[in-house]
Amino acid sequence: EAAAQVAPSAGQGVGVDVQLVSEVNTDNVAFVERNFTVAERAYCDASSHPQSSYAGRWAAKEAVIKAVSSLSSDGAPVWTKGSGAPLIEIEILREEGKAPEVQFHGEAKAAVEKAGVDKVKVTISHSGSYAVAMATAL
Amino acid sequence: EAAAQVAPSAGQGVGVDVQLVSEVNTDNVAFVERNFTVAERAYCDASSHPQSSYAGRWAAKEAVIKAVSSLSSDGAPVWTKGSGAPLIEIEILREEGKAPEVQFHGEAKAAVEKAGVDKVKVTISHSGSYAVAMATAL
Amino acid sequence: EAAAQVAPSAGQGVGVDVQLVSEVNTDNVAFVERNFTVAERAYCDASSHPQSSYAGRWAAKEAVIKAVSSLSSDGAPVWTKGSGAPLIEIEILREEGKAPEVQFHGEAKAAVEKAGVDKVKVTISHSGSYAVAMATAL
Repeated sequence: EAAAQVAPSAGQGVGVDVQLVSEVNTDNVAFVERNFTVAERAYCDASSHPQSSYAGRWAAKEAVIKAVSSLSSDGAPVWTKGSGAPLIEIEILREEGKAPEVQFHGEAKAAVEKAGVDKVKVTISHSGSYAVAMATAL
Repeated sequence: EAAAQVAPSAGQGVGVDVQLVSEVNTDNVAFVERNFTVAERAYCDASSHPQSSYAGRWAAKEAVIKAVSSLSSDGAPVWTKGSGAPLIEIEILREEGKAPEVQFHGEAKAAVEKAGVDKVKVTISHSGSYAVAMATAL
Repeated sequence: EAAAQVAPSAGQGVGVDVQLVSEVNTDNVAFVERNFTVAERAYCDASSHPQSSYAGRWAAKEAVIKAVSSLSSDGAPVWTKGSGAPLIEIEILREEGKAPEVQFHGEAKAAVEKAGVDKVKVTISHSGSYAVAMATAL
């Protein structure tokens, strides 16, 4: 019975994503506006390496999608809009010096709530030519 | 007592692995057949970047070994056959669009069961010249 | 009530870090002595790729800081000494063939205990020009 009580933890979802910074085309305004919120753009544009920051947020969004999908019993994606779906509904917020936070909007929010996702954590890093992000979902 | 009940979660094992894609010599048929199952080879060979897919699976197998070993109280490897041991007994299966799943075979399966490993999750990504994988074990 | 009992697990902190190996200047003795313990230096200097080992430990220390900070409810850092703070108080120990272990010293130890951190796990990998580490905190 004790084992049964910790069962939710056994279903923790995990997601990792690595992203070559140069592949995130921040010169493409339509791409940026389709995938990043106003707050995300303000944060990235003010950073010392904007393109690396965008790549980190991109990786974080992808890691969150994987973590949430991995949480479901059969590993099926919790929501999909096709591989070209905009990632703007998964917002990565960050106050300077604090850990990043994830907020879901629109259809992504509805899908995540329906799937019973309680808590999503994400962490981001970049160095040299790459950004890496990792997420967990409970 | 509540703390004791969540103790299994405190022992979650974690493993990460990064792999330079070019170092995974997919031209070496003996190497490929020794480390990847028929299903893995079918998946990788059909992907848009076979060598990156093989590198991702390689990283995933290494991450799983680390996660399972990290789960044990003293951090000792749950099973070892030496550093040149074939990784074919740790199979990374994936249906298109779903999260990857881990299946253990042979001695790896016996060792993981003996160690009381209940659940292993793995996530894989590749971009540019690198593949990264992360695994958790409960 | 079952949900409440697994709540500590919902607060698991996560941290990832990627580090370009060439950026870790191991020729700078003052830098090395300020950030790595005697045991860490002995381990790294004896490895087949010392600079990669140092980069891996550096990434591990950064990942641990992120994981511990991410554990706190508001994502604020558990301790800070400014961005140039020495990382020597977060020691990454490793016996050959075993998973790495984290030990906290001095102010880092006091801060982590005050924050109620019970368990920190870390995992490290390097390949090619990069090292990657991931940590969890409970």
